[in-house]
Amino acid sequence: MNTSAFEKLNNSISKKGWLCVGLDPDIEKIPAEFFSQDLDGLLKFNLSIIKNTTEFASAYKLNFAFYEQYGSDGFHIISETMKAIPNDIFTIADAKRGDIGNTSAAYSKMCFKHFNFDSVTTNPYMGIDSIEPFLEDKSKLIFVLALTSNKGSFDFQRLMSDNKPLFQIVIEKISSRFDKNNVGFVVGGTHPDELKFIRTIIPDNVLLIPGIGNQGADVEQVLEANNNAPALINVSRSLIYPQIIDNNFEKTIYQQAKLYSQQLTNFLPSNNN
Amino acid sequence: MNTSAFEKLNNSISKKGWLCVGLDPDIEKIPAEFFSQDLDGLLKFNLSIIKNTTEFASAYKLNFAFYEQYGSDGFHIISETMKAIPNDIFTIADAKRGDIGNTSAAYSKMCFKHFNFDSVTTNPYMGIDSIEPFLEDKSKLIFVLALTSNKGSFDFQRLMSDNKPLFQIVIEKISSRFDKNNVGFVVGGTHPDELKFIRTIIPDNVLLIPGIGNQGADVEQVLEANNNAPALINVSRSLIYPQIIDNNFEKTIYQQAKLYSQQLTNFLPSNNN
Repeated sequence: MNTSAFEKLNNSISKKGWLCVGLDPDIEKIPAEFFSQDLDGLLKFNLSIIKNTTEFASAYKLNFAFYEQYGSDGFHIISETMKAIPNDIFTIADAKRGDIGNTSAAYSKMCFKHFNFDSVTTNPYMGIDSIEPFLEDKSKLIFVLALTSNKGSFDFQRLMSDNKPLFQIVIEKISSRFDKNNVGFVVGGTHPDELKFIRTIIPDNVLLIPGIGNQGADVEQVLEANNNAPALINVSRSLIYPQIIDNNFEKTIYQQAKLYSQQLTNFLPSNNN
Repeated sequence: MNTSAFEKLNNSISKKGWLCVGLDPDIEKIPAEFFSQDLDGLLKFNLSIIKNTTEFASAYKLNFAFYEQYGSDGFHIISETMKAIPNDIFTIADAKRGDIGNTSAAYSKMCFKHFNFDSVTTNPYMGIDSIEPFLEDKSKLIFVLALTSNKGSFDFQRLMSDNKPLFQIVIEKISSRFDKNNVGFVVGGTHPDELKFIRTIIPDNVLLIPGIGNQGADVEQVLEANNNAPALINVSRSLIYPQIIDNNFEKTIYQQAKLYSQQLTNFLPSNNN
């Protein structure tokens, strides 16, 4: 029998910890000393990141916008990148999709059947029936946006209704409706107090936590707030676009992934006792 | 000087009325008597729909999910479809995107630079800074999801905060922040009372109104509620997948578009006096 996405993720986390590597490739940012500034260079950049981070990464998150900006060639690079990711490493289509039923069903087909991702990020604004089609295949997992890492998360996600912020209503409604093996949430690491509170509501659902690195979230605060519950902590820009050391790209990326991995492990609450 | 998307849309509406044709092609649904059940057939289906509806369509809306489900080939079909749409007809990338700043910027590049759409649908959940990058090019227009046509619109969009439903807060915050030439909203035709109310808040912003046809919205109610304000009324499935008459696909589509166009014109409030 095939391992479900949820089992695969838990296996990965117990072996390698919480690091999720965000693959956000951009022709204008890949280092010109090592890669051609074109689509071929872009794919080679991704393959090199993967090769030098597999030892530490529990998951890879592909941010679809960075591929889609190159049209069909970008979609082709998603396919080629997926081929290079070892089978036991969890994959996230960071696509933030969500639409009416038949449309979400087509998006689901794209993520799960065409590209064969283990999981996808979805946007809850359009309601439960926009999320359901992503959960037809019970071997998959979705991450629903709850409280995002950006400043804009203060515009609507924290609006109070019946004494609860919108993000809490989203979490309660969706987590009570679907199995925790199939539904996780996105909670930005830039909100450690709310993360702590969210863990009192959903102690067992997987969280995808962005915001570490360029967005300024504090690793120690995030891990304390998460309280050892199942989570992936994503690092994108600050891991894949670092200052190059010894003019060696591969070594730099390996060191950078190791550093983040250690940082995440050092701050495990269980290790602080 | 180039015409802005807003001017182009107004020109189209004043010439041809409110019909927006939704291009949601699906290999499993295109009629096998006329098209091969493959990607080639899919593109030919789109081209035939366009050819036989240009007389009546003010806009074409491409629902991205239906293309993305075929991966990079699907993205290629978006490009080929765009080439076939006459320059004076308004185009909508129905992609419902929205993410943190640098990511929304990449999605914007995809819609506006790579594919050259006039407009895109965006999801407001992540807040103002997730929408802003789509508005860097002031010649473009975006449609922000407010109150969608599906049942799930009752889950979160109508939650009350400070005596206002979320969709109203979204509309007020976003319409007060951006120019009406750049921002419209998606309001499902399945909520005519709310549509009427929304028109008291934003009498001048363009609305994209889905829900006619298979989703069951009533054309007369929608047009009365919209009160002759700038709008596109989208018809997808019931226009592009009709019962074929006289074993003639082209004629069927032409008649179907004509029928919807007339229906929309007959119910113009100004014609009812």
